[in-house]
Amino acid sequence: MNTTNLILITIVAEDELESRLIADLKQHGARGYTVCRVRGEGAHGERGSEWEGENIKLEAIVDAASADAICEHVSQHYFPKFATILYLMPVQVLRGAKFARTRPAS
Amino acid sequence: MNTTNLILITIVAEDELESRLIADLKQHGARGYTVCRVRGEGAHGERGSEWEGENIKLEAIVDAASADAICEHVSQHYFPKFATILYLMPVQVLRGAKFARTRPAS
Amino acid sequence: MNTTNLILITIVAEDELESRLIADLKQHGARGYTVCRVRGEGAHGERGSEWEGENIKLEAIVDAASADAICEHVSQHYFPKFATILYLMPVQVLRGAKFARTRPAS
Repeated sequence: MNTTNLILITIVAEDELESRLIADLKQHGARGYTVCRVRGEGAHGERGSEWEGENIKLEAIVDAASADAICEHVSQHYFPKFATILYLMPVQVLRGAKFARTRPAS
Repeated sequence: MNTTNLILITIVAEDELESRLIADLKQHGARGYTVCRVRGEGAHGERGSEWEGENIKLEAIVDAASADAICEHVSQHYFPKFATILYLMPVQVLRGAKFARTRPAS
Repeated sequence: MNTTNLILITIVAEDELESRLIADLKQHGARGYTVCRVRGEGAHGERGSEWEGENIKLEAIVDAASADAICEHVSQHYFPKFATILYLMPVQVLRGAKFARTRPAS
């Protein structure tokens, strides 16, 4: 099959951040996303649990340039204040053209 | 640990397609799957949002031959009509024998 | 971006095992996790469906040593009795220090 190598970006965050994170993903090139509710627990340095309870897991498939832009943005604007986590995995996608950026990241 | 290299296939689709997609996965060699509800938004060409709202994320771990067969099947039977997306990731699985096909894809 | 290579460990199991699995993940070095509800179906040898219905998907990001310890533990204590599945994927994580173990696995 003809697949395209792209990046699956996953963000876990408190649910109040959902609409803001989605807007940021789109601004940096994501053309789609899924959100699902998760429970969980995370750690912050030596302070023990930082977030606990209902959260969202937000996933988007993007190209490398968008992934970089999203990482940069989340690092600057979320990490200092929120217990957000972000990770990347390479994926092979069918219909890769659906995920191509239609405009440069602003 | 003794792990087996297999493929995690993920399909995001509208929820009415669930039972049909599960039947197709099984027919092409998947011996198990998980489904979870997701919200989301996807893009189609320049037309903007194509699907929006409640969807399912369907995951199955399969061997390479089944992954190819499922990609082929979804491309032919879903992509022309539905906003389905499909992507593949390599995974290392414990108890790999549980995921082996018991019959050839029809 | 400065990312850390870690391992995303995913466990699918019946929901009664949730608190026990979480305790085991933590004991073997996981400092956070997410849980989401999934439906699904799995196979066991030639006996057909082994589990069916509501289950949990438990995910944690850990280092290689913790991943090994968790695989070993789940293999010994869950696989003989439960229809649990476990798989591993490499991930690139931002703020990798958040996932570092604070104590050796017991």
